[in-house]
Amino acid sequence: MKRILAALPLLLLAAPLPAAAQSASAQAERLRDAATSDEIAYDIVEGLTTEVGARPAGSEAEARARSWAVRKLKALGFSNVHIETYDMPVWVRGHEQAEIVAPFPQKLVVTALGNSGATPPEGLVGEVVGFDSLADLEAADEAAVRGKIVFVSHDMTATQDGSQYGYFGRVRRQGPSVASRKGASAIVIRSIGTDSHRLAHTGHQAWDAGVTPIPAGALTIPDAEQLQRILRRGRAVTMRLVLTPRNVGIRQSGNVVAEVKGSDADAGIVLIGGHIDSWDQGTGAIDDAAGLGITAAAAKRIMDAARPRRTIRVVWFGAEEVGGDGSRAYFAAHRHEKVVFVAESDSGGDRIWKMDAGFAPANVDIADRVAALLSPLGISRGNGRPSAGADLGVWARAGVAAIDLQQDSSRYFDYHHTPDDTLDKVDPKQLSQNVAAWTAMLSIVANAREEIDKVPSANP
Amino acid sequence: MKRILAALPLLLLAAPLPAAAQSASAQAERLRDAATSDEIAYDIVEGLTTEVGARPAGSEAEARARSWAVRKLKALGFSNVHIETYDMPVWVRGHEQAEIVAPFPQKLVVTALGNSGATPPEGLVGEVVGFDSLADLEAADEAAVRGKIVFVSHDMTATQDGSQYGYFGRVRRQGPSVASRKGASAIVIRSIGTDSHRLAHTGHQAWDAGVTPIPAGALTIPDAEQLQRILRRGRAVTMRLVLTPRNVGIRQSGNVVAEVKGSDADAGIVLIGGHIDSWDQGTGAIDDAAGLGITAAAAKRIMDAARPRRTIRVVWFGAEEVGGDGSRAYFAAHRHEKVVFVAESDSGGDRIWKMDAGFAPANVDIADRVAALLSPLGISRGNGRPSAGADLGVWARAGVAAIDLQQDSSRYFDYHHTPDDTLDKVDPKQLSQNVAAWTAMLSIVANAREEIDKVPSANP
Repeated sequence: MKRILAALPLLLLAAPLPAAAQSASAQAERLRDAATSDEIAYDIVEGLTTEVGARPAGSEAEARARSWAVRKLKALGFSNVHIETYDMPVWVRGHEQAEIVAPFPQKLVVTALGNSGATPPEGLVGEVVGFDSLADLEAADEAAVRGKIVFVSHDMTATQDGSQYGYFGRVRRQGPSVASRKGASAIVIRSIGTDSHRLAHTGHQAWDAGVTPIPAGALTIPDAEQLQRILRRGRAVTMRLVLTPRNVGIRQSGNVVAEVKGSDADAGIVLIGGHIDSWDQGTGAIDDAAGLGITAAAAKRIMDAARPRRTIRVVWFGAEEVGGDGSRAYFAAHRHEKVVFVAESDSGGDRIWKMDAGFAPANVDIADRVAALLSPLGISRGNGRPSAGADLGVWARAGVAAIDLQQDSSRYFDYHHTPDDTLDKVDPKQLSQNVAAWTAMLSIVANAREEIDKVPSANP
Repeated sequence: MKRILAALPLLLLAAPLPAAAQSASAQAERLRDAATSDEIAYDIVEGLTTEVGARPAGSEAEARARSWAVRKLKALGFSNVHIETYDMPVWVRGHEQAEIVAPFPQKLVVTALGNSGATPPEGLVGEVVGFDSLADLEAADEAAVRGKIVFVSHDMTATQDGSQYGYFGRVRRQGPSVASRKGASAIVIRSIGTDSHRLAHTGHQAWDAGVTPIPAGALTIPDAEQLQRILRRGRAVTMRLVLTPRNVGIRQSGNVVAEVKGSDADAGIVLIGGHIDSWDQGTGAIDDAAGLGITAAAAKRIMDAARPRRTIRVVWFGAEEVGGDGSRAYFAAHRHEKVVFVAESDSGGDRIWKMDAGFAPANVDIADRVAALLSPLGISRGNGRPSAGADLGVWARAGVAAIDLQQDSSRYFDYHHTPDDTLDKVDPKQLSQNVAAWTAMLSIVANAREEIDKVPSANP
């Protein structure tokens, strides 16, 4: 049936063809159902996390991951598998130690935030001044902060949509710059996370223009609560902090690209992906080997079923964790190509529960067809505007149509950016539900006979 | 009522007095119910873990913990609060690092087991030979082990009674000696635990007589599973291991003692307690600040209600984790005193679900009365032989009557001997259920009008 349709004149294809659409949906449904027992995605996650492990941006391990990815994507049968490199500045972790010196001597568990400044090798010692929120720090008198080690807490809790990461994550993203501007000698924050383990959550932060870098770390959540209890005793609290990260200069990173060639070069490209780099302490299983597995498995399932109308391009981006150098390099090099749709997977491997679609008014029927196919997987249709994630958001903001397949984030921030991001946190059953949803979506979008238009200011 | 009874002649008291027993049970019931909202135990756990933190045996921190305990127990109104010191050899942790060198370079998380030998400062490099169980290692040919780094896994799972710790814990207790005897250069085991976090479980092991100490560590469970996956790929696996612990010689440790004085010196002593030392990486909240809080809170509740017939002696033992020096010192010094009953709390702070009692046949009615009072707390009567724990077991084995109030161990081995043993793992509601059960038990046992006899070979 699909071969006959591909031979029909374009004018006819542009007109509504309920029977053909029905058939395309039926094919998508078959692919979806087959994908519910997918093992390709888990195999990718298992392989990359076992055979490479941690793969921080700009490192030799990230380069090994790219080589691994090229071998794997070629073995899966993708076309045009290649690496696109770029250069970037690299920051690496050093020694990390924290302890309460007085009044109750004890060790605390700390890790440096991205781009943290360094203490002397023997550490710095200072009085701790605590704040329950970023707002409290922002409102603080400079005199209360100058020369001290700032501690900032927050009230982040686990949510299904993961939205508290954006909201409370400001403590990590803005806190260090605010503390430095007020003259703090260092800052430690309560980890941006939702667990209760002695594993600190690192993460990217960039210094505001003109701000002097200071040592900036995250305490584990039990350690942050311990420090709060100690501070509440009302006595002066002295901490020794050792963080010796270094900027090691410009290194090479890269994006890995693979394609499923479409039959109609004029129909535009469907661009999907996740990121291949990870933080340095875990093996990056949920962040984001899962996204690599999900997107590649879905694309392969489309490829193996029949040549789609549109080329599906899978990009495994480098350097997402440290600010998105891979995303920027890719957009700069490819922005003039006809990319008509983007979707990213970068929130772990737990089940998709909601779809947010952003299409031009003329293309809303595509979203309707996708939604109908996702419903039996327990996925509802949301009314949010898709972001298309950290790596592909730039395309959505430029007006490219997008779908966010929202993953359940209830436990994602228990492990996110910690040593605990390891394979055992990936549930194969939930991972294959992701592949089923992505396969259905890709099947509809890549084969849609309508032209897929830009979205007029839908994603400003 | 109790004053009148106390004035009655001993002969009369020895005869069955159903009405009086009923009244004693009624008092125990009132104390039990009041204790369900206990806050004393949590206050002790919070205070010790916050104001001292980790308190490894023989350390300055353990000494600070003893001082803290003396202040606390005096403030609670106990009598005869004092420290009994003893000397012991002390082993301290050094640097700890592990990495796969080939075929898939990556870091692993390791911690040294107690009494581990040391690697050179730069570590040792060796081929890894893996075994799925201690039995497999024991059966292995020396030629397969000699000069290699032995890795031993096991299949421990979480159980309510915690019994798999004894069974699978042999991997930790015996594995190092077996590996050394076969000429291994070092051993790393899968942590004896039931979690899935990148936090290794340390723990005591002693070298068999004549065995040369070798470096002995525990990988976290995710790291052990990673190593197993790597080994299963069938290529030679090389590991670099750095463990630099030291024996630092003889140091002082001690037991902290407090009493509730009884009215009848001839009726014997009720001896209860837990241990004040902890492993060095957590703050020892569940192991065993919880046991200190539970036993002291229950004793204080008896003390505040009325003078009991028997003296209740609370001992917070030192050095339990490293082999029981405190227990041995205490037994050696006090074995000739008339201790008639022992009970220990050292399995965390989760609820008690079962009581195992060991009394002489003539005293079975005491167990019956305790059991009747525990039933409304959701505690069943088991048919096991009480061990009385690591610190007081020596008394039970010598024939002293004992009760084990079995705590729910379902999650205990998720945190046990890891940095994750912190205050947030203690559930105040479950902790107060413990106090209620202990209060009821102590009220019955300390006030029982019967003589409490030795148990003839019931606890061999």
